[in-house]
Amino acid sequence: MTMTMNRQVRLAARPVGLPTRADWSFTEEPIGEPAGDHFLVKILYVSLDPAMRGWMNASRSYMPPVGIGEVMRALALGRVIASKHPGFAVGDYVSGPFGVQEYAGSDGRNVVKVDPGLASLPGHLCVLGMTGRTAYFGLLDVGQLTPGETVVVSAAAGAVGSVVGQIARIKGCRAVGIAGGAEKCRYLVDELGFDAAIDYKSEDVRAALKEHCPNGIDVYFDNVGGEILEAALARLARGARIVICGAISQYNVTGPQKGPSNYMSLLVNRASMKGFLVGDYAARNDEATQALAGWLADGKLKSREHIVEGLESFPETLIKLFNGEHLGKLLIKVADE
Amino acid sequence: MTMTMNRQVRLAARPVGLPTRADWSFTEEPIGEPAGDHFLVKILYVSLDPAMRGWMNASRSYMPPVGIGEVMRALALGRVIASKHPGFAVGDYVSGPFGVQEYAGSDGRNVVKVDPGLASLPGHLCVLGMTGRTAYFGLLDVGQLTPGETVVVSAAAGAVGSVVGQIARIKGCRAVGIAGGAEKCRYLVDELGFDAAIDYKSEDVRAALKEHCPNGIDVYFDNVGGEILEAALARLARGARIVICGAISQYNVTGPQKGPSNYMSLLVNRASMKGFLVGDYAARNDEATQALAGWLADGKLKSREHIVEGLESFPETLIKLFNGEHLGKLLIKVADE
Repeated sequence: MTMTMNRQVRLAARPVGLPTRADWSFTEEPIGEPAGDHFLVKILYVSLDPAMRGWMNASRSYMPPVGIGEVMRALALGRVIASKHPGFAVGDYVSGPFGVQEYAGSDGRNVVKVDPGLASLPGHLCVLGMTGRTAYFGLLDVGQLTPGETVVVSAAAGAVGSVVGQIARIKGCRAVGIAGGAEKCRYLVDELGFDAAIDYKSEDVRAALKEHCPNGIDVYFDNVGGEILEAALARLARGARIVICGAISQYNVTGPQKGPSNYMSLLVNRASMKGFLVGDYAARNDEATQALAGWLADGKLKSREHIVEGLESFPETLIKLFNGEHLGKLLIKVADE
Repeated sequence: MTMTMNRQVRLAARPVGLPTRADWSFTEEPIGEPAGDHFLVKILYVSLDPAMRGWMNASRSYMPPVGIGEVMRALALGRVIASKHPGFAVGDYVSGPFGVQEYAGSDGRNVVKVDPGLASLPGHLCVLGMTGRTAYFGLLDVGQLTPGETVVVSAAAGAVGSVVGQIARIKGCRAVGIAGGAEKCRYLVDELGFDAAIDYKSEDVRAALKEHCPNGIDVYFDNVGGEILEAALARLARGARIVICGAISQYNVTGPQKGPSNYMSLLVNRASMKGFLVGDYAARNDEATQALAGWLADGKLKSREHIVEGLESFPETLIKLFNGEHLGKLLIKVADE
């Protein structure tokens, strides 16, 4: 093996508010042979997810923060190019927490092999990846969705949100998406089959929820927090379930975060608000993958990725997550196969 | 029957902030014979509950507001003094939504007969009344308490809170109460057997929760909202359940209410926050009464009432609910038997 260099994106500083290029450093180091029982992955695609913003803060959350100087944590998909691990062979396609870099060594922990026959490679970081499983378990297990109910999802044109709405339709429910801008709203209704879409940039969300959810909201799948969470709370049906998946409106706030001031709607409507982490469902990953792959094959579920080329674009591409410039799943393509 | 007069307390104006005497009017009208199928109750005790504050606002909540000029809605306990109802006989002790007045006519809806052998008459508005059932169903059904867990309850020296902590102990759990003042805290630990009490007026609640809940909070039973809810959210154990019973800190706020700014702790800890109304459990009232009466008879559960004499004290007595001057259940004694 010749001396191949591994370019990496490392966290250089803890951002205040929206991260900037100054919060990152770019490094290069030679890749070596995999250590005993390890394998080496050539990364093809890196997944960009709102949770990454939380990992950049100093406070411990459900996992420790990324240390200053460490390669930024990220899910990624790649191909095994060298292996001393009995379970992973050269040529295998794998996804796992490989980080924002070109190559990653791994002992196989939290790594899954992906079947390139089931979907495109980017699709394995989207509908058939953590994104799809988040929608699947969040809506069906945490949200306890039953046919005929009304589902509202925020950041509906985003990676998780677009899958949530499609699963709601597949399960015989009414799907109402909240997104920013007319183009996204058209996409939700015309391309993904949502029953209705609300443009929070141009519409009164509370009035629109009243119009589109005449019997109230049974499941609100929240990716954004803030005022949209309050609007949903104001329209709950009796026995409603709020699934807390994220709060992207609050991730870059520098002052105190905003809590839902009308949370007592939970009492009035005998409703619940529950948080979850998809990692807790690892033992049921196959169930989700089978269901999602089946819907994908049947054309009932569409996977849409917004792919940006090149690792060096990472600082600016990450910002797209928060300013809502993209549709679907945001990925960086690191290398050709 | 001679012409007996019924003194009544009516809502005269919608209060802004804390209600004052000017928000009430006192009226008198003659009581008549009960209409067909109705019965007439002489009220002995009126229950004062934080929920009354919500009923005084114009906005519809889980029940319509009390109209201006109407007798104030209240639970009460009394004795049947005339009856044309086949199910209720003269001499029966009954509790129901009789209102803040000396006499009430009723068709029996939402009225239950009480067994004076099971507890003192005030006790039937406390541990054996809606108060006790709220604690029972909230903690065991909504909170899904299991032995060995840590329960934290706010307004712990209040009517519902003191029962919550005692049931937690009975069920083999650790009970930590939050209350205002050293006297209340002593009462919780020394008289009711709480494992620990936190005086929010003199202690740092977050630090005290850390000390008294070394493994985190499994069930937080919230009666107060505001900063104490945030302190509890900051100390949740994984899989914790927050039972939303009330938010008394917010009921008299004239500006926007405060939502829990750190509600994303629900995600980090895979926790839930659920509201409930005890009225939904009416079909299981007997189950709760049997359990509560049994614990009362065994000396495992204490009922404490703070009884104020005279209907005319109502405007000032109601304020005691919000300024925390009392211990246990707040009642007005309207008449001797």
